[in-house]
Amino acid sequence: MPYEHPSGSRGEPVIPAHEQVAAPDTREGVTALLERGRTLSTPVLRAAVDRLASPMDTVAAYHFGWIDAEGNPVDGDSGKAVRPALALLSAEAAGAAPQVGVPGAVAVELVHNFSLLHDDLMDGDEQRRHRDTVWKVHGPAQAILVGDALFALANEILLEHGTVEAGRATRRLTVATRKLIDGQAQDISFEHRERVTVAECLEMEGNKTGALLACASSIGAVLGGADDVTADALESYGYHLGLAFQAIDDLLGIWGEPAVTGKQTWSDLRQRKKSLPVVAALAAEGSAAGRLGELLAADAKNPEIGEFSEEEFAIRAALIEEAGGREWTSQEARRQHATALDALNGVEMPEDTRRNLLALADFVVVRER
Amino acid sequence: MPYEHPSGSRGEPVIPAHEQVAAPDTREGVTALLERGRTLSTPVLRAAVDRLASPMDTVAAYHFGWIDAEGNPVDGDSGKAVRPALALLSAEAAGAAPQVGVPGAVAVELVHNFSLLHDDLMDGDEQRRHRDTVWKVHGPAQAILVGDALFALANEILLEHGTVEAGRATRRLTVATRKLIDGQAQDISFEHRERVTVAECLEMEGNKTGALLACASSIGAVLGGADDVTADALESYGYHLGLAFQAIDDLLGIWGEPAVTGKQTWSDLRQRKKSLPVVAALAAEGSAAGRLGELLAADAKNPEIGEFSEEEFAIRAALIEEAGGREWTSQEARRQHATALDALNGVEMPEDTRRNLLALADFVVVRER
Repeated sequence: MPYEHPSGSRGEPVIPAHEQVAAPDTREGVTALLERGRTLSTPVLRAAVDRLASPMDTVAAYHFGWIDAEGNPVDGDSGKAVRPALALLSAEAAGAAPQVGVPGAVAVELVHNFSLLHDDLMDGDEQRRHRDTVWKVHGPAQAILVGDALFALANEILLEHGTVEAGRATRRLTVATRKLIDGQAQDISFEHRERVTVAECLEMEGNKTGALLACASSIGAVLGGADDVTADALESYGYHLGLAFQAIDDLLGIWGEPAVTGKQTWSDLRQRKKSLPVVAALAAEGSAAGRLGELLAADAKNPEIGEFSEEEFAIRAALIEEAGGREWTSQEARRQHATALDALNGVEMPEDTRRNLLALADFVVVRER
Repeated sequence: MPYEHPSGSRGEPVIPAHEQVAAPDTREGVTALLERGRTLSTPVLRAAVDRLASPMDTVAAYHFGWIDAEGNPVDGDSGKAVRPALALLSAEAAGAAPQVGVPGAVAVELVHNFSLLHDDLMDGDEQRRHRDTVWKVHGPAQAILVGDALFALANEILLEHGTVEAGRATRRLTVATRKLIDGQAQDISFEHRERVTVAECLEMEGNKTGALLACASSIGAVLGGADDVTADALESYGYHLGLAFQAIDDLLGIWGEPAVTGKQTWSDLRQRKKSLPVVAALAAEGSAAGRLGELLAADAKNPEIGEFSEEEFAIRAALIEEAGGREWTSQEARRQHATALDALNGVEMPEDTRRNLLALADFVVVRER
């Protein structure tokens, strides 16, 4: 399966090719944008991590996929690097050189990885990017400590140039980080609640995924001297892009192929996640929604959900689909994608940059994993 | 015991009264300084904590001693508040009003409490200020999450005024926070090592205790527009004061009265802490040091140290004292206290403020708990 279309029940892509707004050669263009983000930001990220005292530098290098558990260098999968690509484009949107966005790209990556280290521990997740998580390999104390260190490093990297723009960028990053933490708090609290509304779920996902993508999309512009109106518009683009991204992640969390997602089958169902397809299905009328509600209410109190057969999860997934949760989430991804594009309309920027931001938005909603 | 003198083997204070440099009425003056710091900073701290999403606001309020585990308001012990007092004096040292230091005081308190929440969890400490720690009451996930939130809040509080001074203050706070994290990493790694040198122990304590007290002592001045030379001198005062404070804490960690310290007897020995008296004793010549080294090497591999009798710990404490570890640490507190005072010599400031900084330094090394 070279290309995953994680959408509607008949397997078509969430955004059909004829609706994509960027140039037809976007696939190649996006690869180049992602590559540029990675190439410009990784050396700075590595130098930042090298500042950490031993053994935190080693633990962080393991987390980033630069070394294996024994400390040997590996050519790891360090993710798609959408955020660094956005941060550099954001600098260009303000008329600055892409390099101006690099400290922002690195700071956002550091905050993102701080949250992964802590969330994996809080959630008890044992795998990330097909590897054991840090707390599994190096213990909970190192996961806490290195997460803290990455968070502090993010501010350090931004503030060390001492400019007014750096102060503004740090303030936006701090607000985004607080939302990230709020989102994780909401996510944890939802696990203990029987009912979560669609609005609550969207708010949580906006905090947990939208806020940092919003920051990545504006931080380069702020560092490049953009005014608040421009920065806010770019933030809005990133925020809704984040919600589109998360809607698709929620689809993959139930119907994604393990080989592609790096997670177990029915991953979010196993973890009783109240993700968008689930809450949308539960909010629907009809017998499928009712039957689903009964099953999930029983599951909530069942400690043996880990022992369920594939078929038992398939039944739940089919009910979610029958109640319309899959289709609604797929539509929601399209709506958020459209809102993200709308946010760019009021912003003056070089036409090249605009085309690249549109292409990246398409990529995020029509993605392999 | 109205007044604890945690020093030499014959019970005299670390800094005898005739060597104290501040005015004779300092005791009353210091109480007023601490009270002022608490009065001006607590409402701002409470308002900051109120911004946290539920249930993080409740968990934080429990940690700060404002409510009990059931959520009822209590008139809790929220600590001595030396840091807020220092931050306000630091603003006055720059010729500003004490109020100018308030955001700095609150930010430092937030970072301090972020580190307590995470350290208590990493170290498995079940009690703090005579109460169950947050992870014991609300679980490890909340301890991680609320710690993260307090760290983010600290930056938010400082940066929201958007001034150049706020950016400089945040940068200094970030550097201090990174040192704090380095210090905790060193502290954890020392527990697994057989030998730690006195220099390594001082470096760790400088990071873990010195750096944040240094920041508290300079952050108000930075917010008040002081130049870097003045801010650095005030930092140096706070750094050495922190080391003096920690030396005394290390003495109390072995010989402190449980009723006063809120900890078990021989607390640091039970936790196999390689604190200053221990590493200084092990570095000494003679039979007591040799015997102590053998005992502690055996203890390091003994999982049943928690079952030791009072007498077994008393034997170790006596060997530390015989090898000179107690006396050396007591002298070290005096040396650091003197270095702290020296740092103020080159700084121009109102004479009142200087007297108050000297009085606070005396208070820190001649303290009840």
